[in-house]
Amino acid sequence: MPVMNDEVPDEGDFDADRKRGEFDNITPEDFIHGGGAGHGNPPGWLGPADINRARHQMPIAYVEIVPVRTDELGRIAQVGSLLRVSDDGSIERTLITGRVLFHETLREAIARNIAKDLGDIALPLLPASLHPFTVAEFFPTPGLSEYYDPRQHAIALCYVVAIGGDCKPQDETLDVEWVAPRSDMMETFINQMSNGHDRIVRQALAWAGI
Amino acid sequence: MPVMNDEVPDEGDFDADRKRGEFDNITPEDFIHGGGAGHGNPPGWLGPADINRARHQMPIAYVEIVPVRTDELGRIAQVGSLLRVSDDGSIERTLITGRVLFHETLREAIARNIAKDLGDIALPLLPASLHPFTVAEFFPTPGLSEYYDPRQHAIALCYVVAIGGDCKPQDETLDVEWVAPRSDMMETFINQMSNGHDRIVRQALAWAGI
Amino acid sequence: MPVMNDEVPDEGDFDADRKRGEFDNITPEDFIHGGGAGHGNPPGWLGPADINRARHQMPIAYVEIVPVRTDELGRIAQVGSLLRVSDDGSIERTLITGRVLFHETLREAIARNIAKDLGDIALPLLPASLHPFTVAEFFPTPGLSEYYDPRQHAIALCYVVAIGGDCKPQDETLDVEWVAPRSDMMETFINQMSNGHDRIVRQALAWAGI
Amino acid sequence: MPVMNDEVPDEGDFDADRKRGEFDNITPEDFIHGGGAGHGNPPGWLGPADINRARHQMPIAYVEIVPVRTDELGRIAQVGSLLRVSDDGSIERTLITGRVLFHETLREAIARNIAKDLGDIALPLLPASLHPFTVAEFFPTPGLSEYYDPRQHAIALCYVVAIGGDCKPQDETLDVEWVAPRSDMMETFINQMSNGHDRIVRQALAWAGI
Repeated sequence: MPVMNDEVPDEGDFDADRKRGEFDNITPEDFIHGGGAGHGNPPGWLGPADINRARHQMPIAYVEIVPVRTDELGRIAQVGSLLRVSDDGSIERTLITGRVLFHETLREAIARNIAKDLGDIALPLLPASLHPFTVAEFFPTPGLSEYYDPRQHAIALCYVVAIGGDCKPQDETLDVEWVAPRSDMMETFINQMSNGHDRIVRQALAWAGI
Repeated sequence: MPVMNDEVPDEGDFDADRKRGEFDNITPEDFIHGGGAGHGNPPGWLGPADINRARHQMPIAYVEIVPVRTDELGRIAQVGSLLRVSDDGSIERTLITGRVLFHETLREAIARNIAKDLGDIALPLLPASLHPFTVAEFFPTPGLSEYYDPRQHAIALCYVVAIGGDCKPQDETLDVEWVAPRSDMMETFINQMSNGHDRIVRQALAWAGI
Repeated sequence: MPVMNDEVPDEGDFDADRKRGEFDNITPEDFIHGGGAGHGNPPGWLGPADINRARHQMPIAYVEIVPVRTDELGRIAQVGSLLRVSDDGSIERTLITGRVLFHETLREAIARNIAKDLGDIALPLLPASLHPFTVAEFFPTPGLSEYYDPRQHAIALCYVVAIGGDCKPQDETLDVEWVAPRSDMMETFINQMSNGHDRIVRQALAWAGI
Repeated sequence: MPVMNDEVPDEGDFDADRKRGEFDNITPEDFIHGGGAGHGNPPGWLGPADINRARHQMPIAYVEIVPVRTDELGRIAQVGSLLRVSDDGSIERTLITGRVLFHETLREAIARNIAKDLGDIALPLLPASLHPFTVAEFFPTPGLSEYYDPRQHAIALCYVVAIGGDCKPQDETLDVEWVAPRSDMMETFINQMSNGHDRIVRQALAWAGI
């Protein structure tokens, strides 16, 4: 059975043996178009050698999504965050994030990554415009920018997306937790995020006027 | 019976006698909180003397809304425009627009003006952020800016708002027509708009990447 | 000699007698086109009765500017804040803010208010687009929104403007102080701001990716 | 002597023999840190095999810049466009565009590409925020999106940048021409652009309120 190791910043997986072999760098998204068995090469799929090589050669395009629940006037009523098992086995709090695949539009990448983490009936309401609320630049060198990703240089276009349906956490996502943006829990949750995702949430809230 | 004369740019009313008396400058929005009979002074209501005085003293804050239908990926599938009877009795094509009332939030003003034109079950999906896609400055002097309004200096914050429900045109609005943004009809409709609303639609489409 | 009382949120003046008479609500901006003696009615000028009436009738359009110094790559190197004597005689820290006058464009209002506070050789570099980084809604009712202004309902379009020249504080502005955006002093300065200007600076920094 | 073939959309070079050999896919930007002789491997440099492989594996991150001259109020007074010799030997009109290199920030990529085309004393005034006015998605399949690039899937973050200094066209750029945004020449110039750059200029103008 292939062991999946995600490509995305700060995500983990809960397979303790994940670093032992040739599939270490195959990611969930590499299989997402490949059918239930994970066989075959889906569009945009990259093998471990290719993705590793690319990560040392050029910036990798990502989308990063802050899921929210909105009220009848469009105001953010709740902000969602994901609980995942990180690489070292601890549980981490993070956002929805993933690489943009070859020949995939940004909208497809956003919808695919939301479906991957929140399930197929989350009913995301993508914005009419793809202006990101921020562009986060992750570098493999600590301190070079606000954002650090030891694996790669990533350029993440960040979006707030309202979720209209029901969430069924999937794959490596253990749970999705929602908190009011001005609550004490919001502050607690933000402080539990690492690698810059805390900053991205704060920027999303500032962008929304909160 | 009070004769209503709208405050908003390019809107009209279909009362042929509308310019004869003391209620000429009372607008639909002045009555919107006033109950079915239109009696009483709703919050933010201004009499004709006050609104006329203000219009010659300071810029008036407006919201202007381009209603759209979106597909499952959030792309604009259709753009809505309103048919109204203009001041000179001809039918004009326009957008949703209205003054921000005293003590009213922008979100309330957006929702109120959409309900005024499209009815109560239009289910607008207001964006999470109130960044306008453009700020249109209307001046009573032709040629001073891209936008002209003979009645006033208006500062209009412009938004694209997805409509999720059913539209029932109300008040002075005769009809709402929807066209695909890349269709020939879109171009025809834009050309039928005047006083800068055509430019606002083009800017909305550009902002949405179309 | 007329005693001037500014219209803008959080600004003050240092004339101890300022609340005694008929000129209490005449503001610096009302005189700005009126020449050194303050005589005459400049364009957009409003007397105290008119401005007071308007403030209880409709939202007042403002611009609010966060002045910055940028480095050769356009990054914010320093954020400026103003020291002014507030209404109660204490010194307060604030931003550049002022009403948009009748028949004045937003760009003219931004340039005029910067010149009023920083002098005529500040050489502001206004952005090519007038998309505000946030729209701050001030209400005279505490708690109704993030922003409170006891005098009025104001809608402030907020901009970051790079200052390329020399600053010579004028009128009621005692000093302009510049701090690095990530410094401890930045946090201190933000905490010294009141009435929501602290939030506006934080939103400006978030918008700039800091 | 190595024959350079640019990586960027719509750029060309004027070497008639450019498609004959192993250096066909080495680009000017690959050499930009490598000194006059083009020897050595600059940071972010990719050989033809690597860049070709990457172009078939993942989206490539680009910046695209619309250079402008602004007036004292920040309004766009002139829009610049570049004349270059295209791949088929004809002269084409285009914008400033280039790949983001590994470990390069967006700001560095913007400044580097402006210097490459306009010279070292162009004195670009980069905006305080890196919100792109649009994100243009180029696909190697015609018709899939608004933007087509036969060589690759590219995600271009698009910016308007004011040029404060003197332009000295360099490398493959024959000339830089400036026109007023509302002039007939602007329309002519836009119509001379291909591969979506015309749309990008129109979006830049719409974003600036023109």
